[in-house]
Amino acid sequence: MANFGGHAIPGSFFLLYGFWLTVKHVLQHFWRTHQPKGRQNMPPFFKKIDYVEGGLQIFAAFVGIMVEQFVVDGPHAHLYTSESWVKPMNWQHSTMYLFFGISGIAMVASTRCKLVPTGVDRLALSLALFVEGFLFYYHVHNRPLLDAHIHKLVLVPVFGGSASTMLEVFIRDNIILELLRACLFILQGSWFYQIGFVLYPLRGPAWDSNDGNVMFITMCFCWHLAVALLLVACTSIVVWSTVRRFSGRQLDTEIGMRNTSSKTSSQKALLEESDEE
Amino acid sequence: MANFGGHAIPGSFFLLYGFWLTVKHVLQHFWRTHQPKGRQNMPPFFKKIDYVEGGLQIFAAFVGIMVEQFVVDGPHAHLYTSESWVKPMNWQHSTMYLFFGISGIAMVASTRCKLVPTGVDRLALSLALFVEGFLFYYHVHNRPLLDAHIHKLVLVPVFGGSASTMLEVFIRDNIILELLRACLFILQGSWFYQIGFVLYPLRGPAWDSNDGNVMFITMCFCWHLAVALLLVACTSIVVWSTVRRFSGRQLDTEIGMRNTSSKTSSQKALLEESDEE
Amino acid sequence: MANFGGHAIPGSFFLLYGFWLTVKHVLQHFWRTHQPKGRQNMPPFFKKIDYVEGGLQIFAAFVGIMVEQFVVDGPHAHLYTSESWVKPMNWQHSTMYLFFGISGIAMVASTRCKLVPTGVDRLALSLALFVEGFLFYYHVHNRPLLDAHIHKLVLVPVFGGSASTMLEVFIRDNIILELLRACLFILQGSWFYQIGFVLYPLRGPAWDSNDGNVMFITMCFCWHLAVALLLVACTSIVVWSTVRRFSGRQLDTEIGMRNTSSKTSSQKALLEESDEE
Amino acid sequence: MANFGGHAIPGSFFLLYGFWLTVKHVLQHFWRTHQPKGRQNMPPFFKKIDYVEGGLQIFAAFVGIMVEQFVVDGPHAHLYTSESWVKPMNWQHSTMYLFFGISGIAMVASTRCKLVPTGVDRLALSLALFVEGFLFYYHVHNRPLLDAHIHKLVLVPVFGGSASTMLEVFIRDNIILELLRACLFILQGSWFYQIGFVLYPLRGPAWDSNDGNVMFITMCFCWHLAVALLLVACTSIVVWSTVRRFSGRQLDTEIGMRNTSSKTSSQKALLEESDEE
Repeated sequence: MANFGGHAIPGSFFLLYGFWLTVKHVLQHFWRTHQPKGRQNMPPFFKKIDYVEGGLQIFAAFVGIMVEQFVVDGPHAHLYTSESWVKPMNWQHSTMYLFFGISGIAMVASTRCKLVPTGVDRLALSLALFVEGFLFYYHVHNRPLLDAHIHKLVLVPVFGGSASTMLEVFIRDNIILELLRACLFILQGSWFYQIGFVLYPLRGPAWDSNDGNVMFITMCFCWHLAVALLLVACTSIVVWSTVRRFSGRQLDTEIGMRNTSSKTSSQKALLEESDEE
Repeated sequence: MANFGGHAIPGSFFLLYGFWLTVKHVLQHFWRTHQPKGRQNMPPFFKKIDYVEGGLQIFAAFVGIMVEQFVVDGPHAHLYTSESWVKPMNWQHSTMYLFFGISGIAMVASTRCKLVPTGVDRLALSLALFVEGFLFYYHVHNRPLLDAHIHKLVLVPVFGGSASTMLEVFIRDNIILELLRACLFILQGSWFYQIGFVLYPLRGPAWDSNDGNVMFITMCFCWHLAVALLLVACTSIVVWSTVRRFSGRQLDTEIGMRNTSSKTSSQKALLEESDEE
Repeated sequence: MANFGGHAIPGSFFLLYGFWLTVKHVLQHFWRTHQPKGRQNMPPFFKKIDYVEGGLQIFAAFVGIMVEQFVVDGPHAHLYTSESWVKPMNWQHSTMYLFFGISGIAMVASTRCKLVPTGVDRLALSLALFVEGFLFYYHVHNRPLLDAHIHKLVLVPVFGGSASTMLEVFIRDNIILELLRACLFILQGSWFYQIGFVLYPLRGPAWDSNDGNVMFITMCFCWHLAVALLLVACTSIVVWSTVRRFSGRQLDTEIGMRNTSSKTSSQKALLEESDEE
Repeated sequence: MANFGGHAIPGSFFLLYGFWLTVKHVLQHFWRTHQPKGRQNMPPFFKKIDYVEGGLQIFAAFVGIMVEQFVVDGPHAHLYTSESWVKPMNWQHSTMYLFFGISGIAMVASTRCKLVPTGVDRLALSLALFVEGFLFYYHVHNRPLLDAHIHKLVLVPVFGGSASTMLEVFIRDNIILELLRACLFILQGSWFYQIGFVLYPLRGPAWDSNDGNVMFITMCFCWHLAVALLLVACTSIVVWSTVRRFSGRQLDTEIGMRNTSSKTSSQKALLEESDEE
């Protein structure tokens, strides 16, 4: 879908998903750091949230595949004709959606069934991002310089997100990794918008491939990163203060006693080890 | 062995090995999560399994080397003549088999002798995969585009498997890493079949190197990955349910009490650390 | 700022910052290893130091951005004219400073507020170094060989520092990682001076791009590394002996008893695990 | 020193060093696994060994630098003349030796003084290998294909050794990492001999750069790796059995009771964690 809308729609999805991850993980972190020692299982509320998230992911992936296949100029589920492949771009996009759907299935399965090993959902998400980056990487051959460059930059949040999500398979409940993942999704979403603005501007011609444009795009990517960091920070602060006000007065003394425990758990464990001297 | 069979035979081996690893590690995981706390040593049954696996690996490597050497158009153990090297391809394949043989020896040795440090078998397997990828990497120079591309894609499961197996030297008994390894072997096996179908099709000419074919092959690789994930998931579920039914009624209450402990062990350890707040 | 001063000023900053990090982390390490077991919180002195460091970082970043923007031949906050981008180099440098400013804000925030997860300051510093390296990487296209090579070498301390700082998010209070970071900042600073001497020498012409010069520059980089290691080692020894003399006679016996605990904490934890046999 | 001897001498050093590391680490591992729980400090014997090793490293580095500088056609400590750099190759080799010397100093310092953080010796060795690989990498530009290829292959053990030694800063007393390091030094040593045989054969002309030779060299590298693995395994077995026989009859019953504890310590810790279910 080589037009503005074709970049804005997935961009919006990634933006929303990034914000959603920020909210969810800040809530979970609040819950973790405000629990008395005895209770350790996540309350049913978080389970329901994970069902909804996984379900929406599956639904979105399904809709995405259908749209890519049965859009007016789509392949309509035909893979090849006698002389050539039919609409390889649409098929590639369908493949990307497929893996995000698999990631949604893994999320629902690991929430539903305690026998599924913890971390499978993160592994599936990491693979989905890897596949997205992998297809993007071979997507951009033989394109004009600016087009290739701007598509290559999207690989930074994609492979970065894949690596950090893979780390989460082993290091669980680390708020920094979780917010980094959210931040990289927001960066990816806003960068899709940027691609749309540069290659398929709503008015005026597409930018050309001169050196100045390439240099600006590189720098602009860093600004997107700074904005994504700012958005994650602000959202986290808003969510944290809101939930603290709502969790009410009966927790106030408890918070006073516990606000030193807001370190992430794995770091705390490390610190505890290091403090045993 | 540049023909369909030359890719189908190793492909079948890798496929079978991947399935075998899935079954073995699911059994081990079942055993680990259903043990009372006191007993920690693997039962003799798993030791026997490891002997058989290591032995078969050594045997297969030996047969592979012999076939590569003494096939009709093989080098017959001659390395060079006065003017050139004899059949370098066959020698390269023999070298790959050699390292899988070494990996088998390491497995038998580390099962047999408690003095061999735990993890040596994984290190040897990781090196075997590294050597395979290393030789493949220099294998594909000066070939047509499609041929080089399809051979380069096999490096993803090979080096990915090498890295994840190396991780297992340090993170033991993690079911996610173990099944990821199984999945990557299945992917490698099915991809060998795909190489055979594309470059040496049973009927019709080999595919040519146009852009459409390269794009399709890239996407097709992702489909193989999705199928490999599906196969590992299904096999795991089947094995798990079968073994649970067979392990019988006397465990039922125990399972009811213990099914929360199905998290992988290292993650559980991390969780336990993080829960100590 | 393509002149000697434009490389000497940031170089001096990085040099000073590297020395400062050495002093700070040796002090913290001394404090950690000389504490009785009960007290674990850093004393207020270290908090004040972190405020000052973060504040100076924000101030320096602000001044840097202002200078890059409002210097005589700067862009004066104009991003583009009708026909081209205005002074992309100055904008790129401003972007680099921006991220060091964000890193300073993260440092102040994580010192001020206990709710900010530990490690956010290191993540922000790691991102600042990543952005610096990222912009440098695309900075050097289309330049003469020697110019490109000497700028590419600066990526070694930048990306190396980014990776080691990212590790510090997970492995806290490890004196080796902390001093490695200090060493890489010193290396970066001294290399900026070297770039200035080679490309914009104070007298005589700039060096040309012959092979001998490129080979010498590569080797010279290693000498800078050796000198940086030496400087960190000497500074650490001087700071350590000074603080030990000042911390006075009442600690002498304690030191005698405790000097075995000078291992870094995480290693000690590992050793303790390994010794439990 | 572009002749056979110039490759055989460092090759012999690396071979000897690899064997030495194997012997040392097997002895240390034997000692670790045969200790009663109470005693944890290394006996003075191992300290003396580390002094000797560090001292020899410093001495060899010093001799190496002197030879490179004051050999008949060497630079005699002149860095440049008015028109060009003097003997850049010799200066590069001197730089490599310098870093191995620094590594020796770090080893002596960390053995001598308990205040030096554990792991500094490994960091210095890792840096020495990194610098060696770094200089080699830029060493091989503009050479014939075979020459460049055979020199590039030496980067595998060099950078691999650098990475595994860096890991040892964090994961101490892991016999697998220690023997891997020994193995990579042996591989590097034997590969230096191979470079000598190929590029400066004792009789006959140097090999030319045809494809067959390049393919053979790639495969030959894997054979060297297999031989290095074999040598490390055999040496370990010989040293282990010797030391067990010498440690005598009074330990026999103890060994009988303890031979399950021959797993490496960090793995054991992981296993212990994973077994606590």
